[in-house]
Amino acid sequence: MIIESAQNKTFKEAMLLKEKKYRQQSGLFLVEGQKQTQELGKDHNINCFFISKTFSQKRQFETDIKLFVIADPLFKKLSSTQTPQGIIAVVEKKSYDCEKILKQNGFFVILEQIQDPGNLGTIIRSADAFGAKGVFVSKGSVDIYCDKTIRSTMGSFFHIPVIDEIDCIDIMKLMKKEKIKTFAASLDAKTALNDIIFPEKSAVIIGNESNGLSFETQKNADELVKIEMQGSAESLNAASAAAIIMYKIALK
Amino acid sequence: MIIESAQNKTFKEAMLLKEKKYRQQSGLFLVEGQKQTQELGKDHNINCFFISKTFSQKRQFETDIKLFVIADPLFKKLSSTQTPQGIIAVVEKKSYDCEKILKQNGFFVILEQIQDPGNLGTIIRSADAFGAKGVFVSKGSVDIYCDKTIRSTMGSFFHIPVIDEIDCIDIMKLMKKEKIKTFAASLDAKTALNDIIFPEKSAVIIGNESNGLSFETQKNADELVKIEMQGSAESLNAASAAAIIMYKIALK
Repeated sequence: MIIESAQNKTFKEAMLLKEKKYRQQSGLFLVEGQKQTQELGKDHNINCFFISKTFSQKRQFETDIKLFVIADPLFKKLSSTQTPQGIIAVVEKKSYDCEKILKQNGFFVILEQIQDPGNLGTIIRSADAFGAKGVFVSKGSVDIYCDKTIRSTMGSFFHIPVIDEIDCIDIMKLMKKEKIKTFAASLDAKTALNDIIFPEKSAVIIGNESNGLSFETQKNADELVKIEMQGSAESLNAASAAAIIMYKIALK
Repeated sequence: MIIESAQNKTFKEAMLLKEKKYRQQSGLFLVEGQKQTQELGKDHNINCFFISKTFSQKRQFETDIKLFVIADPLFKKLSSTQTPQGIIAVVEKKSYDCEKILKQNGFFVILEQIQDPGNLGTIIRSADAFGAKGVFVSKGSVDIYCDKTIRSTMGSFFHIPVIDEIDCIDIMKLMKKEKIKTFAASLDAKTALNDIIFPEKSAVIIGNESNGLSFETQKNADELVKIEMQGSAESLNAASAAAIIMYKIALK
């Protein structure tokens, strides 16, 4: 049976997940595209799949999971891309045990008030590339479950723990307990990135695109760090700054 | 006099500049926002300003340059932001002498087929931050004069030469003549970034977001370089990769 009506209850419920409010209420979010849905792996529970009529006709798609075929115009409504591939999964949000994550050796990322979903996704992608053990995203940041964030991670969202709605100070306290040294990226820092020797357990803290890190967070960090710049740009893009620092941490 | 009609000739001509085709025909482009228009400096010829009626009422704006006040709804049409600040400049494209640029000591950036305007703008911003002497953007890349590219550079577009519609192989030949060593970022490279000693005159080449660098460009580069990754992401975002390599080049 193909869902043809925008009034169909299942379709309407899926459409609601395009809004943060309903993602919060339901604990569900949408994952779109072939590569991304394949990346979901065993770690995430998939509630159901929506595939477009065209997709269902072109491809053999076998799954034990509930599957809804929907008319192409409806699929286009549900999709958040301009040229949809024809597959969207409804996925359950995962909950993580922060204390357990912080017990691992390795490095961590804290993001304070990141507003751009592309930046957030790109940072998660870099964190995965450099082997971070977890990314902690503060309250007041853009929703980690919004389509553009997830798309920008290029699958990395499903490789490493991404924990949202955290309080930076609380997480830094937990880190202190676990002997994780926290480094806050700041244009006002005196220590240059290249002069820092990162311990086995480190965390980098990246702030808002326009305002950087809050005073409170900077004050609570173990060390402030600045990326050496020679040119006339005032600052780097947040995701670029994060990538450079994570590269250095991972190199050691 | 306030322009109130969308049929006004001056307004209509400005509207055309939102399309690449007309930017190419006229040699003009739009620069929006207070910070960006201030960054234009003396280096770029400003053809005229458009300000919204609200902006003209709120601020004293003195200039020798032709100034058009337009009704707020028209300004919104001309603007490419959701909450326009009320000022847009029509600016003449600058032409650069590539050979002269390449005679300088320092480092350069070549971009091949970058498709995302945000990535392109972010790379230009990083290039400026790390003191690059010029950014060369290949044919087939996203237009350097599109609003999102310019906005993402955060003013850096007006700090360093950005040369578009280049042929990568031609530029690399010119670089060879000027004894600039070219380093192509490639996932297949054998040499790790951290093992490279960059000479005074270096250039980094970054490829397309999905496909990386063309075979031809890789073959013509002096050295292939890879960024060491530990995690499970297949690759980094193009702008993040560019930032890391430029950081290393600038550090020396």
